[in-house]
Amino acid sequence: MTKNWQKLVKNLHQKKHRQIEGLFLVEGTKSVYELLQSNFLIKAIFYTQNFEQAYQKELKSLAKTIHTELTTAEILAQVGTLQSNDGALAVVQIPNNQIDIKKTDYLLALSDIRDPGNLGAIIRIADWYGISQILCSETTVDWYNPKVIIASMGSFLRITPYYCNLANYLQNINNQEISNKFTIYGMLLAGQNLHKTQFYDKGIIVIGNESNGIAADILPLIDQKITIHRFGEAESLNAAMATTVVCDNLRRQISTEDKK
Amino acid sequence: MTKNWQKLVKNLHQKKHRQIEGLFLVEGTKSVYELLQSNFLIKAIFYTQNFEQAYQKELKSLAKTIHTELTTAEILAQVGTLQSNDGALAVVQIPNNQIDIKKTDYLLALSDIRDPGNLGAIIRIADWYGISQILCSETTVDWYNPKVIIASMGSFLRITPYYCNLANYLQNINNQEISNKFTIYGMLLAGQNLHKTQFYDKGIIVIGNESNGIAADILPLIDQKITIHRFGEAESLNAAMATTVVCDNLRRQISTEDKK
Repeated sequence: MTKNWQKLVKNLHQKKHRQIEGLFLVEGTKSVYELLQSNFLIKAIFYTQNFEQAYQKELKSLAKTIHTELTTAEILAQVGTLQSNDGALAVVQIPNNQIDIKKTDYLLALSDIRDPGNLGAIIRIADWYGISQILCSETTVDWYNPKVIIASMGSFLRITPYYCNLANYLQNINNQEISNKFTIYGMLLAGQNLHKTQFYDKGIIVIGNESNGIAADILPLIDQKITIHRFGEAESLNAAMATTVVCDNLRRQISTEDKK
Repeated sequence: MTKNWQKLVKNLHQKKHRQIEGLFLVEGTKSVYELLQSNFLIKAIFYTQNFEQAYQKELKSLAKTIHTELTTAEILAQVGTLQSNDGALAVVQIPNNQIDIKKTDYLLALSDIRDPGNLGAIIRIADWYGISQILCSETTVDWYNPKVIIASMGSFLRITPYYCNLANYLQNINNQEISNKFTIYGMLLAGQNLHKTQFYDKGIIVIGNESNGIAADILPLIDQKITIHRFGEAESLNAAMATTVVCDNLRRQISTEDKK
């Protein structure tokens, strides 16, 4: 691995450089293998013998068009963010994300989620529950942070983010030419019991910051406050647990209703 | 902090020493403060000025009976497991845990949960959903591992673990003199849709290992296989997410049914 590649990969740990270069990192055997099946544009792949043995055919066909290079697990650990990686590391182009609210029933909207592990987990949960678009406030941690990508367990390949001024976006969403309005649901402490909440055909579920909840400028835009009922004594659930529960309750309505 | 105390605290990072000493660590302002409200037997507390200012009264009353000592955040970070801890660290006696299945409707049973973060999260979820007793296979990560305690966010104070040969325990549980039998539910890939599962009055929910699922000797004991329905494409949910969903579905049945 040349010094230039090493420098580029290390730089991509930082948001500033990801934005300048328009590139991000995908690390680990499983995530890189899933990446190969996707439409993402790969700029380079560095891999160990272990990965080469498993995916010889795929690597051969890639070598015609992009930079592919055999290296060692030690070097991947040195330049990447995983403590050990006897697989592969890919340098990938950040896609030009467009969301299309006409193509979805429900979206998540993240109001200042700061922890990369939480964002990665939320992407994975959204993917499990068939929610393919996520709005992110500009203060939400960067989607292409390597820790987010790793924690999403490959789900970043299927879910589209859209960073925006969330308050503005939510204020204007129902002004667009759409058939039904989006109901804006917010996870809050003193809302309706989630178990008794009616989810309408189309909606947006706002998830708040780990410590401070939903931002003050977004609160007035919430149509329906919902609360996860507590049966015991824990003070709280974390953002990923809360997202899991709300998505499950939303989709259970579909799976238990007669669908017409 | 004397060398002897430093050595003891560092030793308690390891299971072997926790078992020899019968002691474990509680770290961080919030967890130690909650600990002070509990019935757990505290052997020593080391705290920073920051903690002292907030909890002067509590510390004064403790100083009569146990070792309390003002120290620095640097030393707490050095001897403890938290990277930074400008609060407190307590050395606490491992309680003599007894579970009482006559006092509960539902229990969780962990079949070889290995990741301390997952176990901590599961303890927190159980506490949220009012499940106060957790059976653990002998291969499950140690409950008193400092990472488990930290991830449980104080919920370890309210939930009772019981380590046992899980297969034997589950085989014999319904031989005890109890009014209704416990139905044994297992989270598996090809089970009944959780959204359509009937939860009986009393039950045990078996959660499997992160990679390998429920152990082979426990599988034949499952009365009802349940599966979290997938609506999208993520390959899996992690153990904590799965536990959240199953507990929510279990308790929603109570909150939406007429209770007599």
